[in-house]
Amino acid sequence: MGAGMMAVHGISTAFDLAGWSGQHLGRVEQALGQWVGRDAPAGLGEAMRYAVLDGGKRLRPLLVLAAYEAVQSGAGEAAPCAGMDQAALRAGMDQAALRAACAVELIHAYSLVHDDMPCMDNDVLRRGKPTVHVQFGEAQALLAGDALQAFAFELLTPDDERIAPAVQATLCRQLARAAGSAGMAGGQAIDLASVGLALTQDQLRQMHRLKTGALLQASVMMGAACGVSGAAAHKALADYGAALGLAFQVVDDILDVVADSATLGKTAGKDAASDKPTYVSLLGLAPAQAHAQELLAQAQAALAASGLADTHALAALADMVVNRSY
Amino acid sequence: MGAGMMAVHGISTAFDLAGWSGQHLGRVEQALGQWVGRDAPAGLGEAMRYAVLDGGKRLRPLLVLAAYEAVQSGAGEAAPCAGMDQAALRAGMDQAALRAACAVELIHAYSLVHDDMPCMDNDVLRRGKPTVHVQFGEAQALLAGDALQAFAFELLTPDDERIAPAVQATLCRQLARAAGSAGMAGGQAIDLASVGLALTQDQLRQMHRLKTGALLQASVMMGAACGVSGAAAHKALADYGAALGLAFQVVDDILDVVADSATLGKTAGKDAASDKPTYVSLLGLAPAQAHAQELLAQAQAALAASGLADTHALAALADMVVNRSY
Repeated sequence: MGAGMMAVHGISTAFDLAGWSGQHLGRVEQALGQWVGRDAPAGLGEAMRYAVLDGGKRLRPLLVLAAYEAVQSGAGEAAPCAGMDQAALRAGMDQAALRAACAVELIHAYSLVHDDMPCMDNDVLRRGKPTVHVQFGEAQALLAGDALQAFAFELLTPDDERIAPAVQATLCRQLARAAGSAGMAGGQAIDLASVGLALTQDQLRQMHRLKTGALLQASVMMGAACGVSGAAAHKALADYGAALGLAFQVVDDILDVVADSATLGKTAGKDAASDKPTYVSLLGLAPAQAHAQELLAQAQAALAASGLADTHALAALADMVVNRSY
Repeated sequence: MGAGMMAVHGISTAFDLAGWSGQHLGRVEQALGQWVGRDAPAGLGEAMRYAVLDGGKRLRPLLVLAAYEAVQSGAGEAAPCAGMDQAALRAGMDQAALRAACAVELIHAYSLVHDDMPCMDNDVLRRGKPTVHVQFGEAQALLAGDALQAFAFELLTPDDERIAPAVQATLCRQLARAAGSAGMAGGQAIDLASVGLALTQDQLRQMHRLKTGALLQASVMMGAACGVSGAAAHKALADYGAALGLAFQVVDDILDVVADSATLGKTAGKDAASDKPTYVSLLGLAPAQAHAQELLAQAQAALAASGLADTHALAALADMVVNRSY
């Protein structure tokens, strides 16, 4: 413990999240810039890059890398591949984590491209720029989203013997489940069917657990899967991911009411305008804000229970998610 | 060799393709019926099942299973997992092949759902039924396609220790590449950009090599990846898959001209109506037919060169692809 220590249960922190994020995001942005659209025909590649590069908070990649860092701090256990030297093993694990970080961002980016299309949310502004279908046409947007999803799985399965096949397969399993009908796509379908309906808090939680929570939690668990963690740490990280995932959505609902479009980089006030059930419409603004803080406390408590030595970045990310202004 | 033998280089065959297909498709249909939409919210699951079940020739699953059968016939080599008994190993390989067969069909089915949407081909009829967006609305069709793609990768990565992680990772790698921007989605983007253009035969070949060829070839190679094959057989199967993939598209172009919608189960004459470049518009009808037969001969020659003992089903499938009437 030293200058980098932080109060895990508190909101104030001595951990330099901006510095930590900047360092890790540099690698992520470089990798995305190098990989995305590389093998695509020109027009499609341009749309894919437009959808992914220069935008977004990159929360999901940061969660992957923070969870990977946390499990590294508890490591020193048996290497998964006997006969491989430690430096090569570590390089492979680092590479797997970087690929996982990019893959979750590709899934997130593709979902935004499809969500924004006229048949879904019909949104024209995203991250302060015209949405992909506005810029490139609907057909290209549809294909770019499809290609980004496929590319996420391609990134996870390189022909690279430093990354153990078991890690590759596990990452694909986690991402596929989080993205599909029992995860993100399923949550979007429930969302679609819920417009104008009065949901209970349980139904709303279930929708968001799938729609945004599954991919956020998977980000944490994929980072953990690139290293080695015991059952207790695994369970604690799953709890952290679940609380953080739900908190993210509660805060999203709050910001849709309290922030303006320029700050958000997307259209504000859409939920109420489109008669979507939200935590604010269900609980009211102040109770929704209290609920977000409660979920933050749950996330931090899970980290404290994990037994992992270095959860500073995970703790600071949870704090950032709940106390962000956009 | 016996009653089941066939003339590999000829068109006539004593191999009972209908019987063989019926037997194998029974397992595929049962598995798809059991798996697809299982974990999805009701409306989404219904759209996913509608898109996949009760329809299609299931060419891709049959190619997976035929290639798996072919490499089994050349097997008897070292088991990939030492310490596992032979029966368990075989059961795991069978299960991997069945999952691969279903996964390629899910990718094919999702691509049809998205292709048919108004912003793409705007088609209302598929396999003699209303297309998914006509039946369920555009938003649900978009999500169903997205969820089917994710589910393909989920099927390939079960938490099942009988299927070696290396096989799971290889199958994901092959499918992701074939489906993405350097495969199917990339070919569709080129197709989109080619309407009204005069392509050379090389450009047309390249478009179809991506748009339909990549997934057909991947079907063959994924079947092979579930078993054990030497480098020569691997190369021969890749050549077979490439020739068959291209032949499939040449015949598709021919059928669009010579068949009617009722026979095809989809709108005939669409290529000419939408001013798309095709093998018929480029070469003329009779030369296109001759080209298809030439590609069939290439596919059969590749099988003869494979050194594999049992390529009957692969040979018969190539024959069926080229000499089909719908």
